[in-house]
Amino acid sequence: MVFQTADAMGEILSRPIKKVPALRGQTVVNLFYENSTRTRASFEIAAKNLSADVLNVTSTASSIAKGESLVDTLKTLEALGANIIIMRHNLSGAPYLAARHSKANIINAGDGWHAHPTQALLDLYTIRKHKGNLTGLKATIVGDVRHSRVAHSNIWGMTRLGMEVTVCGPPTLLPYGLDNPGDNFPKVKVELDIEKAISGADVVMALRLQRERQQSGLLPSVREYVQRYQISAERLKRAANDVLLMHPGPVNEDIELATESAYGERSVIGEQVQNGVAIRMAILYLLSGRQGGL
Amino acid sequence: MVFQTADAMGEILSRPIKKVPALRGQTVVNLFYENSTRTRASFEIAAKNLSADVLNVTSTASSIAKGESLVDTLKTLEALGANIIIMRHNLSGAPYLAARHSKANIINAGDGWHAHPTQALLDLYTIRKHKGNLTGLKATIVGDVRHSRVAHSNIWGMTRLGMEVTVCGPPTLLPYGLDNPGDNFPKVKVELDIEKAISGADVVMALRLQRERQQSGLLPSVREYVQRYQISAERLKRAANDVLLMHPGPVNEDIELATESAYGERSVIGEQVQNGVAIRMAILYLLSGRQGGL
Amino acid sequence: MVFQTADAMGEILSRPIKKVPALRGQTVVNLFYENSTRTRASFEIAAKNLSADVLNVTSTASSIAKGESLVDTLKTLEALGANIIIMRHNLSGAPYLAARHSKANIINAGDGWHAHPTQALLDLYTIRKHKGNLTGLKATIVGDVRHSRVAHSNIWGMTRLGMEVTVCGPPTLLPYGLDNPGDNFPKVKVELDIEKAISGADVVMALRLQRERQQSGLLPSVREYVQRYQISAERLKRAANDVLLMHPGPVNEDIELATESAYGERSVIGEQVQNGVAIRMAILYLLSGRQGGL
Repeated sequence: MVFQTADAMGEILSRPIKKVPALRGQTVVNLFYENSTRTRASFEIAAKNLSADVLNVTSTASSIAKGESLVDTLKTLEALGANIIIMRHNLSGAPYLAARHSKANIINAGDGWHAHPTQALLDLYTIRKHKGNLTGLKATIVGDVRHSRVAHSNIWGMTRLGMEVTVCGPPTLLPYGLDNPGDNFPKVKVELDIEKAISGADVVMALRLQRERQQSGLLPSVREYVQRYQISAERLKRAANDVLLMHPGPVNEDIELATESAYGERSVIGEQVQNGVAIRMAILYLLSGRQGGL
Repeated sequence: MVFQTADAMGEILSRPIKKVPALRGQTVVNLFYENSTRTRASFEIAAKNLSADVLNVTSTASSIAKGESLVDTLKTLEALGANIIIMRHNLSGAPYLAARHSKANIINAGDGWHAHPTQALLDLYTIRKHKGNLTGLKATIVGDVRHSRVAHSNIWGMTRLGMEVTVCGPPTLLPYGLDNPGDNFPKVKVELDIEKAISGADVVMALRLQRERQQSGLLPSVREYVQRYQISAERLKRAANDVLLMHPGPVNEDIELATESAYGERSVIGEQVQNGVAIRMAILYLLSGRQGGL
Repeated sequence: MVFQTADAMGEILSRPIKKVPALRGQTVVNLFYENSTRTRASFEIAAKNLSADVLNVTSTASSIAKGESLVDTLKTLEALGANIIIMRHNLSGAPYLAARHSKANIINAGDGWHAHPTQALLDLYTIRKHKGNLTGLKATIVGDVRHSRVAHSNIWGMTRLGMEVTVCGPPTLLPYGLDNPGDNFPKVKVELDIEKAISGADVVMALRLQRERQQSGLLPSVREYVQRYQISAERLKRAANDVLLMHPGPVNEDIELATESAYGERSVIGEQVQNGVAIRMAILYLLSGRQGGL
């Protein structure tokens, strides 16, 4: 349903006046406890395209030292008339706590290392637009899978929709126990050799390398990372001819992706951003409880 | 007139599409020289509900070292087309200086320790919604009255409207000379014993305890404050059966208010926030000089 | 064409409801890599008056250490649906790099010491409103011309439109080689004596003095600057009777301008701000590719 609604939103985005009155008079709050330009901007534009009023509330971690303050903030936003609260938080699970304490609709826009569901939805939507059916497609996720909420949500979504997922990266940056997860955890393949990992892949998704991983001793050097795991044009040739090269952005050019790959013909990075607006419009629209207005 | 208009605004807020074109084409500026999420958000939502365009301008105290700069900023906002300027400032009196130098309508959204008139209006409006007539009601304000603009504006408003006001808190945090004010100052009762102070009260208003009071030596310890002045469920029983428990927010839970009080059945803290939007819509509407449009 | 369109926008600004649907459904991004309240506010109000959706993106210089990130940000904004990107950057030339890499329309809102074209346009528009024809008018620009993008854009624009430009200020704060520019550079007169420089001027434009010039050794003392270069009421009498006193704001009162000059009858500083909104509305409107809607 999200994907069909996103198709309708994509059609709206292609119009000269990309604005519909669907959410007129609703208040959408961007409640961001972590810096984010692109996700916040994507939601803000999506909400405004639907004629919602958008309120930006940003907060530093220090001002929410106590868990109670989050609940207090949510109750206040609810009383102020917030219909939908888009929440990014540095602590895993915070949006779920929020949803239990608020009558407003809560959207998780990224929580700690845990999940980033709308990113996974836009990634899956992008793959589906190119490939049609997702079942049986091979995806390889390369990089710091352990600390990546984008990877976690994609692994969850991709395996649910019948894709085969391989992860590749420095062992220190891969999750523990991926080879032998419990029954409720998705099964993914681990392949430490980048060339084998990419071989035959329909989707290659590179993750952003955070510089702080090196400082915390999880990564010997950026130079070594580049040598072993960068998606170069050469390496990408091992994938399927019609491979999609993806990245959640912002790209560290010439680190996880060679510039020629990032802007090459197999890259769909720009489409991901574009589809993100359509997916987020769809989610806001479906949560708003408004019918019609498109 | 503000209260009647706020009733009309409350009716708008109960509609599925809570938006009217009353202030379309007017520019409302949030000029905040102090951090504030909730007051800023309340005004922003109020203005957008009335279809005004909202401009947020925030500034640190350092950039306004000289009084002239404030006047310069105001003249600029006026020339840019600001119709209404909502101003919060760390210096008492700044909005009054502003009003003398600007043709735009200035709303005081809190100035130093001095006043926070729209907060008092929403508090009085909340009391009136529950009690009808205000005359003769007993209100007890507990906490750091000396440094609280919320308390100052409420004392002024409550006594004007015929309420009896008692203040209670550590002597170091009560204003000087309250027992014996001049002719132009409102008369309030001082009662240092919390249990006597609350006894029979129709309204109990707890104030936020700023941690810096302890650092500056005005408060021996938070622990002692809690013991002596916290509004516990037990203490609240001494008030009238239909007492309203109020707080300007954000609450320090289990400091000035026990959690069970804050979210208990006598608490109207959420309603205060809700009524704040209606009151601020009413003030913006009345200042805009627009008739009709509701 | 910009000036004629600005006249139409000025008429809209004089209406009780100063809002037209011309840019409805277009997204205008304020991409500011440098702090700016007034230019950002001017563009934001201009865009909202035209019913565009406005997205504010601010960034500190530190987050764009690498040139690639700027291109990445631009591609993201484009994919998000930005139609017009208003860009301020601390590095000269950045908006031109941006324009080469983005399909969105880029407006330079100030780049390093280089240029601030919309400021020059609003200055020229203000002069034209008072004087009609610009050809042959004498303008004197006083202050830190070397580091002023406002001065650079005005020198370029004024000389193109046939005005005679004199610059005056401490030799350390004047550009190198102004007396003998190459063929492609505008010819201006240098006059170190403020009284001679102002004499007979139709326009006197004072520039903001940045305090850091003194710290970097380019200025002996503010006191000496005031004595030698401040536009006092007395000095202003040497100009033409109908001289226009201009300043890009914010004014350091009693430094580059005496307060009595800044708010005196020859000052058009407030009009500059007001005309800025009309000029920016005109530029946004012309770039939007929308006809009609006014």
